[in-house]
Amino acid sequence: MKAKRVLKLNADGSDDRLTEICRTAAQFFYEKGFDATSVSDIADAMKLTKAGLYYYIEGKQELLFEIMNRGMDALEQEVIAPAEMAADAEAKLEAIIHNHAKQIAAGNHAVTIISDEVTALTAAQRKKITARRRAYFDFVRATLDELKKEGKLHDVDTTVAAFSIVGMILWVSRWYQPGGSLTPDDVSQEISKIAFNALLSPTGIKN
Amino acid sequence: MKAKRVLKLNADGSDDRLTEICRTAAQFFYEKGFDATSVSDIADAMKLTKAGLYYYIEGKQELLFEIMNRGMDALEQEVIAPAEMAADAEAKLEAIIHNHAKQIAAGNHAVTIISDEVTALTAAQRKKITARRRAYFDFVRATLDELKKEGKLHDVDTTVAAFSIVGMILWVSRWYQPGGSLTPDDVSQEISKIAFNALLSPTGIKN
Repeated sequence: MKAKRVLKLNADGSDDRLTEICRTAAQFFYEKGFDATSVSDIADAMKLTKAGLYYYIEGKQELLFEIMNRGMDALEQEVIAPAEMAADAEAKLEAIIHNHAKQIAAGNHAVTIISDEVTALTAAQRKKITARRRAYFDFVRATLDELKKEGKLHDVDTTVAAFSIVGMILWVSRWYQPGGSLTPDDVSQEISKIAFNALLSPTGIKN
Repeated sequence: MKAKRVLKLNADGSDDRLTEICRTAAQFFYEKGFDATSVSDIADAMKLTKAGLYYYIEGKQELLFEIMNRGMDALEQEVIAPAEMAADAEAKLEAIIHNHAKQIAAGNHAVTIISDEVTALTAAQRKKITARRRAYFDFVRATLDELKKEGKLHDVDTTVAAFSIVGMILWVSRWYQPGGSLTPDDVSQEISKIAFNALLSPTGIKN
C-alpha cells in the first residue's frame, strides 16, 4: 500500500493551485464521469504536464476523495452552519433546503459529486465520506423530528421525508440549465416552496 | 461501424434467456457501475462462457441500451398506461407517483438505470433514450399543468415541480433497503403522500 502523500501547499500555506485542480477535475468528473476522465484530461485543462500535476496530487482516486471532502466542507459551512444559527426548527429547515439547492444550482460540482456512488474510493476513504454524508442526513432528519414534536409536520415518516427532500435537491444538478430562464435563486426558492408544502402542515407554515 | 445484430430469440419467439441476461447485467451495473462491470462478470453470473454470452448480445454497450429500453418499456406499461386510464388529472398523478416509486422500491434495476447518465451509449442510442425519457417527463409535467388549470395545484412552477417529484422518486433506489421495516408499498405510499402535499393545494386533496 502506498503511503498517502500530503497535498502540497503554496509557500504561504495557501492551496489555491490545488483548489483550481479540484475545481477542474470536479467539472470533468461531473460531465464525463470519474472512470471516463483521465489524469491527462485534467493536466491538459490545467496546462500542466502529467508530472506537474502529480506534484500536487497522488492520483485520480486521491483527487476524488479530496473533492468529496471539499464538497462536504462546503455543505457544512454553507448549509449546516447557517442552519444551526437559525432561531427555530422551521427556519433551520428553510436554511438547509435553500442553501443546499443554491449550492447545486450555482454549479458547485464538489457538492454535486458527494452524492455520487463512492465505489471508486478505497474502503477507508469510502468509510470517511459515508460517515460525513450520514451526519448530514441525520441533521436533516433531526430537524424534521423536531418539527414533528412541535406538531408542525404533516403526518409523514421523517426518514422517507428527509431522503425525499435531499433527493429532490440533488436532482437539480441533473436538470438545471444555468443561463436559462431560472436563476439559481429562483430554483432554490421554488424547491423550498415545494419542500415546505410537502412537509409542513398548513398551520405550521409561516405567512 | 459494426452492424447492429438482432438480439436472439428462442425457437418459440420468446426471449427469456436474454431477459435473464438483462436482469443480471442490470444488477451489476446498478451495484458496481457500468464501467467497473466486465462482460466476464455477467457471463460468470449467467454460468456462460464469454462466447456463449456473445451469442445473445453484441457487447456491453448494446446490452446497456437494451436494458434502458426495457426500463422505458416498463415505465410505459406500469406507470404511463395505468395513468392514462385514470379518471382525472389527480388520479393520473397518483398513478404516476405510486407506480413509479413502487417499480424502483421493488428493485426493477432497469427502471433505475434509465436515470443514469447516458455517456456510455453511442450518440444514436443516447438520442433515442433521451427522447423516451423526455416523453415521460413531458407526460408528468402535462399532468401538473392540467391540475394547475383546474386550480388544484399550489402556486409552483410546473417544470421545477415535475423534476422535483421525479428526483424524489428516483432517489429511492439510492436509500431504500429491501427487507427493512418499510415494504415497497409503504415507500410508494409515503412518497405519494409527500408529493401530494407538495403539489396539491389543500382544497385539491381528496378526503
